[in-house]
Amino acid sequence: MDFDFDVLIVGAGAAGLTAALYTCRKNLKTAIVSIDVGGQTNLTSNIENYPGVEPMHGAVLMQKFLKQAQGVGAQLISGKVGRIEKIENGFRVNLKDGQAFTSKCVLLAFGKVPRTLGIPGEDHFFGKGVSTCVTCDGPLFRGKDVVVVGGGNSAIEGALELAEIANKVYLVHRRDAFRADEITVQKLKSHKNMELVLNSAAVEVRGQKFIDTVVVQDVNTKATRDLAVKGMFLEIGFIMDISMLEGLNVNVNAKKEILSDSVTCHTNVPGLFAAGDCTAIPFKQTVISAGEGAKAALEIHRHMTGAKGIALDWDH
Amino acid sequence: MDFDFDVLIVGAGAAGLTAALYTCRKNLKTAIVSIDVGGQTNLTSNIENYPGVEPMHGAVLMQKFLKQAQGVGAQLISGKVGRIEKIENGFRVNLKDGQAFTSKCVLLAFGKVPRTLGIPGEDHFFGKGVSTCVTCDGPLFRGKDVVVVGGGNSAIEGALELAEIANKVYLVHRRDAFRADEITVQKLKSHKNMELVLNSAAVEVRGQKFIDTVVVQDVNTKATRDLAVKGMFLEIGFIMDISMLEGLNVNVNAKKEILSDSVTCHTNVPGLFAAGDCTAIPFKQTVISAGEGAKAALEIHRHMTGAKGIALDWDH
Repeated sequence: MDFDFDVLIVGAGAAGLTAALYTCRKNLKTAIVSIDVGGQTNLTSNIENYPGVEPMHGAVLMQKFLKQAQGVGAQLISGKVGRIEKIENGFRVNLKDGQAFTSKCVLLAFGKVPRTLGIPGEDHFFGKGVSTCVTCDGPLFRGKDVVVVGGGNSAIEGALELAEIANKVYLVHRRDAFRADEITVQKLKSHKNMELVLNSAAVEVRGQKFIDTVVVQDVNTKATRDLAVKGMFLEIGFIMDISMLEGLNVNVNAKKEILSDSVTCHTNVPGLFAAGDCTAIPFKQTVISAGEGAKAALEIHRHMTGAKGIALDWDH
Repeated sequence: MDFDFDVLIVGAGAAGLTAALYTCRKNLKTAIVSIDVGGQTNLTSNIENYPGVEPMHGAVLMQKFLKQAQGVGAQLISGKVGRIEKIENGFRVNLKDGQAFTSKCVLLAFGKVPRTLGIPGEDHFFGKGVSTCVTCDGPLFRGKDVVVVGGGNSAIEGALELAEIANKVYLVHRRDAFRADEITVQKLKSHKNMELVLNSAAVEVRGQKFIDTVVVQDVNTKATRDLAVKGMFLEIGFIMDISMLEGLNVNVNAKKEILSDSVTCHTNVPGLFAAGDCTAIPFKQTVISAGEGAKAALEIHRHMTGAKGIALDWDH
């Protein structure tokens, strides 16, 4: 049968757009299906850690990625994927709006969405003090007061990191204790500029142009307290939606992250690849996702040209 | 004891410079020791596949990487590493010129050097028709005649790829047969625009501003033949120099590539990390090395702050 595409990429973030740049340069007919352009990078108002480019808004950088991929022939299809089906020698990708496309290979690069609190002011101040990435935005808060919300390892590690940079760090956690090891908790307590705000939830974000106050509430007494801060970091996990994979028997972990080979990006389903934040790779960074997208694209090319074995076996 | 640095990075290519950007942003005192700035990327006269930047000379892009890393505090030390020694809780890095630095962690990011032929004209026309990377430069030769030199898998795959782009492809190999599978060799022969030039060696590159002729010689009869081509791709392997690691018992493969975990970049020696082309990762691309450098840096930060387990175990 004739396929619509050689490669169909789900998601137009750093991983998907880089993959498209590479597959098109390999003469593979490539489409990207996505609900947006830019993914998580769009949420960074001033990306300073993508090597080779001056600081700019993440969304501006992602438009450059898009232009480059389209410049070599990548086709962008706006839409939400409903279900991916296995067909002979390829896949059929069904969109929610009724469109369907066939492709020899599919690359999953749809990322994940950081969980948010859904409290007043949170959306409004996103990028104006509210962040979901300490690694990305932490350095902007040198010498300032900040709050970290969350109780898992990433919240604790984020708080410890901010303690070295910020003037004062409040760590707000709904429970009365952390699940982390005692030694890690001791480390938290050893920072003079760290205040643990336990049994508490953030309930409102206030400010003018940027945030100046986070209101927290004791979950037992319901008493509220205003924390005067310039930044609020949400470290409360991510939302993974893998409903499009139902019936494909793709291996995922307990967090529903897709398990793909960390060198070749191949999932357990032949012809189905995954790269970037939707995989179990732990680091959520634009340059890392871009690199993973390039690896996936080069491996897809090898796969489609019948190269045997994984690329590690290359004989130079 | 006091260490000179938290992190010492060997090599200032895409991997090393990106790693420095990330470790400095994590407040780790970072130095890069290198004989040059830019590594393999410098050899690409017009890099078109680094996402987010307009096409530019690879060396220009690498200067941007350097400026960014230095802007957050990375120190560049010019020199060649002679030997890396394990000391208590860290390493001593001895330079050939007699300088020595101590560091808590070391990141190996010194890349590798593509093997060249050492024939007249080859150096002169590098970047003017002579290339060591089909993935990088192949698309520039659309509709033109090119020669590929080599007999391994990467030469064959490069030739097959160029056959789809170029007008005519000569594949020059010193022996009378290829080590590759018969099916792959059949594929070579199925391309009407592919000519296998066996028992032959390239002996001279000629041209004006760009190359126009590659002279090949039959290794038995010594007869020469002029191939009129615009491009020559060398696919004859890489040189790996790991003498600096003597005595450290670092795991390497048969090609002397460093074996590091593909997610964490950790070698088998605690505190010693590796990223980019000096590792066994098969794809030699700037964006991939940059991504690997960022992964290594984030893992080094985790390692130094006492985070337990590999990052895959993160509990969000």
